[in-house]
Amino acid sequence: MKSTMQEAPLLVSAILRYGAYAYGDSNVYTYHGDTTTKRSFAEIYTRSSQLAHGLASIGVSTDDRVATFSFNHNQHLEAYYAVPSMGAVLHTLNIRLFADQLSFVINDAADSVVVADVGVLPLLARVLRETPTVKHVVVVGSGDTSVLDGFNVTVHDYESLIADRPEEYPWVDIDERSAAAMCYTSGTTGNPKGVVYSHRSTYLHSLSAISGNSLGLNKDDRALVIVPMFHANAWGIPYAAFMAGADMIMPTRFLQAKPLADIIEKLRPTIASGVPTIWNDLYHYLESNPIDISCFRLISSGGAAAPEALIRGYKERFGVHLVQGWGMTETSPLVTLAMPPRGVDEEGWMKYQLSAGKPVIGTEIRVVDDSGKELPNDGKSIGELEVRGPWITGSYYNRDAPDSFDNGWLRTGDMATIDPERYMRIVDRTKDVIKSGGEWVSSVELENTIMAHEAVLEAAVIGVPDEKWDERPLACVVIKPGLNVTPEELSEFLKSRVAKWWIPERWCFVSEIPKTSVGKFDKKVLRKDVGDGRVEVLKAGS
Amino acid sequence: MKSTMQEAPLLVSAILRYGAYAYGDSNVYTYHGDTTTKRSFAEIYTRSSQLAHGLASIGVSTDDRVATFSFNHNQHLEAYYAVPSMGAVLHTLNIRLFADQLSFVINDAADSVVVADVGVLPLLARVLRETPTVKHVVVVGSGDTSVLDGFNVTVHDYESLIADRPEEYPWVDIDERSAAAMCYTSGTTGNPKGVVYSHRSTYLHSLSAISGNSLGLNKDDRALVIVPMFHANAWGIPYAAFMAGADMIMPTRFLQAKPLADIIEKLRPTIASGVPTIWNDLYHYLESNPIDISCFRLISSGGAAAPEALIRGYKERFGVHLVQGWGMTETSPLVTLAMPPRGVDEEGWMKYQLSAGKPVIGTEIRVVDDSGKELPNDGKSIGELEVRGPWITGSYYNRDAPDSFDNGWLRTGDMATIDPERYMRIVDRTKDVIKSGGEWVSSVELENTIMAHEAVLEAAVIGVPDEKWDERPLACVVIKPGLNVTPEELSEFLKSRVAKWWIPERWCFVSEIPKTSVGKFDKKVLRKDVGDGRVEVLKAGS
Repeated sequence: MKSTMQEAPLLVSAILRYGAYAYGDSNVYTYHGDTTTKRSFAEIYTRSSQLAHGLASIGVSTDDRVATFSFNHNQHLEAYYAVPSMGAVLHTLNIRLFADQLSFVINDAADSVVVADVGVLPLLARVLRETPTVKHVVVVGSGDTSVLDGFNVTVHDYESLIADRPEEYPWVDIDERSAAAMCYTSGTTGNPKGVVYSHRSTYLHSLSAISGNSLGLNKDDRALVIVPMFHANAWGIPYAAFMAGADMIMPTRFLQAKPLADIIEKLRPTIASGVPTIWNDLYHYLESNPIDISCFRLISSGGAAAPEALIRGYKERFGVHLVQGWGMTETSPLVTLAMPPRGVDEEGWMKYQLSAGKPVIGTEIRVVDDSGKELPNDGKSIGELEVRGPWITGSYYNRDAPDSFDNGWLRTGDMATIDPERYMRIVDRTKDVIKSGGEWVSSVELENTIMAHEAVLEAAVIGVPDEKWDERPLACVVIKPGLNVTPEELSEFLKSRVAKWWIPERWCFVSEIPKTSVGKFDKKVLRKDVGDGRVEVLKAGS
Repeated sequence: MKSTMQEAPLLVSAILRYGAYAYGDSNVYTYHGDTTTKRSFAEIYTRSSQLAHGLASIGVSTDDRVATFSFNHNQHLEAYYAVPSMGAVLHTLNIRLFADQLSFVINDAADSVVVADVGVLPLLARVLRETPTVKHVVVVGSGDTSVLDGFNVTVHDYESLIADRPEEYPWVDIDERSAAAMCYTSGTTGNPKGVVYSHRSTYLHSLSAISGNSLGLNKDDRALVIVPMFHANAWGIPYAAFMAGADMIMPTRFLQAKPLADIIEKLRPTIASGVPTIWNDLYHYLESNPIDISCFRLISSGGAAAPEALIRGYKERFGVHLVQGWGMTETSPLVTLAMPPRGVDEEGWMKYQLSAGKPVIGTEIRVVDDSGKELPNDGKSIGELEVRGPWITGSYYNRDAPDSFDNGWLRTGDMATIDPERYMRIVDRTKDVIKSGGEWVSSVELENTIMAHEAVLEAAVIGVPDEKWDERPLACVVIKPGLNVTPEELSEFLKSRVAKWWIPERWCFVSEIPKTSVGKFDKKVLRKDVGDGRVEVLKAGS
């Protein structure tokens, strides 16, 4: 039996229109270091319309891929809205990709236009010889563009391209399951894989993000969007904030602790999103340069597990809740968020804050064993995390990857537990798993525990071959400047905190942990460094 | 270009599954006067599964209409979930319908099963002779069912029907645009018209309702569901609360001020939903029987405009915000909600609280003139309100009604203004509009202003023919018990509050204003009473 409801497709243009209509005087602040510019949602609407006209004028039409190669700023946001709303497909390029990966993803997506910050044009120029589909580069910001001379591309100035265009665009009426945007995984093995978000998935993901038990973005919020817009849609906040009428603060390239502190002091955000390394840097900066950060109702952290010491530090020292979430490029990315259950007091919250959270409305999670059997939600059974929902990918672009899917569920490659209250805890990446004498050792938990030591800045744990136990953990540690610590002291520190047989016998001290293009520990490189003997491995007690 | 996202249809079963999974220990309280029963969301899931098995056992299959004829209680909620989730269609029957309307809607929908409270069986029995499609009556509650004897229906006891059934049901995988539920308008003219909600519209409506700028239902809430579940889905709260993990309190037939006060005192709801007459009754009861109602973070009011005096009274006397919303059966019903803009203090809020609110995410509103031209959002231009969105009806069941629609927008039959901040104010029903000397008089605003007088309990204003001005307002007033007031005193009272030429010359005093089956002023009956000379019309000053 058919319903009588209107069709009303869920489109990115509907988010844009609603935000500009209902919250036209909310603002997007773009921080340039010495100056901050402000654009109202109504202006963003107008400028997005003008950008769509500008892109159409250089030949962009339905399904064409328009890439961005930019930090977070209002022009990037305008591309987020204009490109999908005109029926084209937004492809966010990661500025930190290596050249061969960058040319691979541009060619795989067949991008025809790249909207790029003037400051990163040299990075783009490195690959333009190998990316023949790119015909236009639209440059954001003023400066020298001569690095693009000699390539077969037409160079446009962003502001000139949109100037004097009509303030309304006939946004396309398109199937909501059509492509809106795409993003490539930052997989450390093999070529990046493309994920194509639909208008529908983007709309639903945003609606879930603004629900009260999720990020709860609302009209009283001001969101500091630290996580890059080229990284899993900046966790969907550019779209969700528009739905919610929440101000946004875009920090451009100023992602270091000092300018972030300056932004917080001047613009008073209520919520922010970033990876643990950002929060860690900021925390240590604030320790010696204290400012009032009570403007935050919460800061959200994802991309990797945040150390307990850091979560405690923010709460005890600054009264700010650091709320962890879990997601990946394949999941738009929001799946779980560690908001506490009802009736839990400040101290009781910590148990939940240490988890990756429970599924937000719209998502489903489960853990399964090697044979694909679902495991109980008992907080103990460790299995591969699988997820399902309207904004979870069901395939990859141009790529067969049958091993990534399990009867309609996405296999995440993360090992996890789910407890009876449905809080999920990541134990490890499946490929980072350490099995010692037939039992799991959680590299993630070991790392977080080691990082709780006052002398430790960072720690990464990998499995190394062992004759007796098949595999044993090796801990690689970065010591805080001016401090010192020995393997013996760290082993002693772990004694009361983890199972005795988890304590590594092997330690190495390094100046920094190698990281991927999105700032995660790159254990593949670390393993290679260890395997090739490039770092010295000490034995505790030796 | 296709996206790579999973299909993941938006189904009622997904709401049920999520609520039971993520918030299995949230509760549904059913108030029976002397006792209160409690069912956890996990139990509601199990019992909904068992109800689906029970209904299947008596022949219910895909697309069959299963009606409910019930007050608000957990069994009604179980039907809300079980019927759509098994692929059948829930049809909520209004207990207060007149017999001929009741038999009309049952026949129009071709209901095969009616789930009915034992207390209202006599009302059902009055029509069973005329409703041959009804084959089964499932009785909720224990008591005498002999009134059903002699009809061609099989009578089942609800608890017996579901007892010992399996605790899981294979919920159907169905197109999200399929019918989930239907409800008939309570139109005072002509036969009721059927609106058929889809799984998709129900899901999206609920997601919007739990967003922070909307009702913002969340896990810390306990929702007192006063608005009947047979009236526009109880404003969608039974579904939204499950998504949000919010407790629900179901008051069954105890909708009078005294038991409602008892519920508030005992069960401490944080939010409630009801029509203005309920809030008015409760307010007057609390004036003489004060209790602490600070448990409320807000009470929501809809179905008709709430008088300013009432809104002020709740705020000043009890510190509780009464938040108005606007919607209708055709709109699922949530369209607008009068939450204040950011940065507005307590006193500043009143201006917004007096409006019908601004559109919630997912809906669009506009006002158009007689020729269908869109009018400016200037707070002055009065036109017919039109609405659009995924949970707005685009047609009626089994009925052509081209006059109700305007190029994809629903014509609401309400006259309204929208101000630059997008707050909408209902001026009148199009059919209640009074045009005096070519200018609008808002019957709604006049009524609310008159009701602000301390001696007035209720007031309804209708247009009556006038030789000089074509039409003039006539005010029908119900005086509070033990008080007195004259037309002259009321005219004087209005002088500083409305335009001079709005002040009625004609007044009548009645013991009560006639009301529709859903408790709204029935001006059709009032006009007839006046026209037939059944009420005495006084002239002010005469």
